[in-house]
Formats: sequence, C-alpha cells, structure tokens
Amino acid sequence: MQKYRMLLQYLGTRYAGWQVQKNRLTIQQLIQEAISQVTRETVSVVASGRTDAGVHALGQVAHFRLQDARPVERLAKALNGVLPPDVRVLRLRIAPPQFHAQKDARRKRYCYRIYNGPVLSPFLHGRIFHARLLLDAERMRQAGKVLRGRHDFGGFASSRSRVADKRRTVFRSDLLQRGHYLDYRIEGDGFLHHMVRNIVGTLLEIGRDRRPVQDMQRILEAGDRRLAGPTAAPWGLYLVRVWYAGRKGRRA
Amino acid sequence: MQKYRMLLQYLGTRYAGWQVQKNRLTIQQLIQEAISQVTRETVSVVASGRTDAGVHALGQVAHFRLQDARPVERLAKALNGVLPPDVRVLRLRIAPPQFHAQKDARRKRYCYRIYNGPVLSPFLHGRIFHARLLLDAERMRQAGKVLRGRHDFGGFASSRSRVADKRRTVFRSDLLQRGHYLDYRIEGDGFLHHMVRNIVGTLLEIGRDRRPVQDMQRILEAGDRRLAGPTAAPWGLYLVRVWYAGRKGRRA
Repeated sequence: MQKYRMLLQYLGTRYAGWQVQKNRLTIQQLIQEAISQVTRETVSVVASGRTDAGVHALGQVAHFRLQDARPVERLAKALNGVLPPDVRVLRLRIAPPQFHAQKDARRKRYCYRIYNGPVLSPFLHGRIFHARLLLDAERMRQAGKVLRGRHDFGGFASSRSRVADKRRTVFRSDLLQRGHYLDYRIEGDGFLHHMVRNIVGTLLEIGRDRRPVQDMQRILEAGDRRLAGPTAAPWGLYLVRVWYAGRKGRRA
Repeated sequence: MQKYRMLLQYLGTRYAGWQVQKNRLTIQQLIQEAISQVTRETVSVVASGRTDAGVHALGQVAHFRLQDARPVERLAKALNGVLPPDVRVLRLRIAPPQFHAQKDARRKRYCYRIYNGPVLSPFLHGRIFHARLLLDAERMRQAGKVLRGRHDFGGFASSRSRVADKRRTVFRSDLLQRGHYLDYRIEGDGFLHHMVRNIVGTLLEIGRDRRPVQDMQRILEAGDRRLAGPTAAPWGLYLVRVWYAGRKGRRA
C-alpha cells in the first residue's frame, strides 16, 4: 500500500461541492473516478474538508491509497489528462502511511471575494460576490477583528452542524480593500459548516449599516445562529490553503 | 435621432464572435436584441472591429442610434439587466452624430496571453493559451520587435482577407514575461483579419525554436501567408483598448 497526498485546485461553479452525492456531480467523485480510470484501483479520496456547492479551491489538500506504488509525476499527469479543465492536480507526492488530510490539518485559510462597484466584469462572474449596495469597509474590518482568538463559533455554524465542540481558534480575520474589490481573509485551526459564509453574511449586513458593528461580539457570545446574517453566496468563497504539522510540511 | 457610444467587455468563450451570423450566437446579435428589448427600437450596432469566435474583449467600442433620446445611465443599467453576465456594458455615452466606432478608430491594443508552465489553473481555462513546450521568450521578443513601424502585413493576413491595402502601422509589439506567463502586446492603427493570431502562431514557433528569429522579417518582406505559422488559438486573445481621435476622447 502506498499513500499519496495531492494539492488540488478547482472552480466550484459546475459542482455540487466536494463530497460524493447521489445523482449530483461532485469533485470527490470526479477525482475518485479519474484515479480509478488511470490506475484500475477503486479508491476513496479524503480532503482536508468538504467545500460546498459553488465554492472554489485554490489549494485543497486530499489523500488516497493505492495497492500498487506509482511514480507521482506520471500519475499526476495522467490524472490531469482525464480530469475536466476546471479541476486540476497541482501537485502529487508520497505521504507517510499515517497522514490524514482532514484530521492532520492544523490551519486553513479562506478568502471571500467581494466586488462593490456598479458593473461586474464578465471575467469575474461566478468568481466573486457582487455587492450592489455601498459597503463601509471600515465597519466590516472592525467587526471582523472581534473574531480573532479562541471562541465558540456556534452562532455562525449551520443549524445542521452536529459537532459537539464548536470552539475554534481564528488566527487571522482581516479585510483588504483595493478600489471596488474587498477580500475578506480568515485563517483558523478549523471551521464549522457554513461558518465563513455566515460570518461574511453578517459582515455584509454590518457593511451596509443594517446592523451595528457590535453585533459580531453579540452573536459570538450568544452562540445563537438566528442572530447572525444570512449565509453569503458560495461563489465568492475560496479555500486558499491548508497547513499541516510536521518538519517542513507547511503546505501540501 | 441620437447616437450612442458604448464600451463593452465580453468573455468570448460561448460566442461565434462579434458579427451576426445565421444560427449562431454572436455578441452583436445579443447587444442588438438587448437594445431592442429595452427601447422597443430595432438597431444596428457597429463595433470598432469584429472579434472572432472565442476571442475576448476588455474594451470593445461600438456605436448605435436611437430615434428617441434616453438617459445613458438608465439605459446602460437596463441593458446589463437583460444581457447575460458574460457580456457587459461598462460605459455608455452620447456620441456626436458623425462618430463611427469602426472608421474613426485610430489605434487598437490587443494582448495575447500565454501560459508556459506544466499545469494550467482551472481559473484560466479558456482565457489563456497553454503552450506546453518550453518557449524562449527572448527569441520571441526579438522577432516581435521587427513588426514595429509601417509594413505590408499581407503575410499575416487571413487568406480570406479581401482588403486591397494591407499596410498597417504597428506602434508597439512587445512581450512581457512574469514567471510562466507571457503576454504579447501589440498596438497598431489597424489589424487585418487574423493578423494578431497569425503573428502569435509564428512567434510561438520561433519561441519553440522550430524556426529562425529572422523568419518574421522574411514573412513581412515576402507577404506570403503560407510562410507564416498557424493561426494561434482564439482563447488567448483580448481586444484591450481602442483609441479615437478628438480632444480628450482617447478612450470610449
């Protein structure tokens, strides 16, 4: 048996997210089928975490095992040869037998891209969220800061989230503004289902002056999902990078 | 009667180019239909030049006339409301009655985008040409330089080109390299059918060392289309900007 670790990039637009679902096209399914087609082995591919329908990945990490060892460069090339162009294997390498893409992930970075101008470029359609009402970036920045540190993020978790312990550490939560473009970046040791999109939905309402900046703190303390804003659209969200523990292994 | 001038951006992927064609979806048709739908007037829209199937535009300029004058901001907004998201009106303004988007164009800039690395990002699929063999940018730069100035570009025109005078002036012809990315930029007072793509097809062969740098000069002098390289793929090509004569009117 040989374990492999892959760095993936995908445009989420056409897919029902990462995880295999009946009658719906998912990235996990595509990759599992590509591996089967190339190696004639049936595999199960485990990612650092699921991404929802429409969400993109610049640096998703996943692992899988093969009965027969194979040269990684040729295997990566063969996989890209059968995968559609909106899903790419950027890197493939041998992993230690105990490596687990989900359980060993120590830190993840997400970016939520917002365009706050009048006309969205055709080149960014489906790749950025178009916020039509004027946003106050400073208010959003203030509210975003509050999330840094270790907190119970239950107020931002999907109501379907069944994880018992909703405490997570956020290392970074900031907003970059360049003209009409706003990038919200968040880094943490783990994220609950819909957590980033629920945070962004709340930030957008704060940015539009529909709620006070202090709401962020309030939601965090109350832990009540009903207090937070709506789940922001998936197409603005990117899984940027996943970090693992280990000597050099900061990146897949 | 009121004349309008519009600045357009479009992703060419889904379209059979600018010009109306029977049974094929074109940008001209879409825009004409959008104007009709919004104004209830039948119009003919004239662009600075046709773009081929699959070619993109960052700044195409076009004009049209309406019987009834309309406020430009509302009209632009209404057009974007009915156009698909891969075609956008970036700006719309009143033009002098004699303005002609094609005949008055004084200068155009095209950019041809090339990726010369192993794995193309899903986010750039259909938006850049993936050259898999290693390119020598310096050779391409040398060859590209030769085109500057006034020349007969017959050797780079489509064999279907029926223009009598094939002399054009190229103001700029250079190659920008950033890592695996190469951008070939060309500016001129006019371009023959397929001229940029035939130039790029030749540059790519020179970059791959399949022909000498001197071939550019040879093709220019011989004026024989059969000497030049193949027409490069449309999806790498962008019409970037069109300039017009006039006091301030450098841009639409």
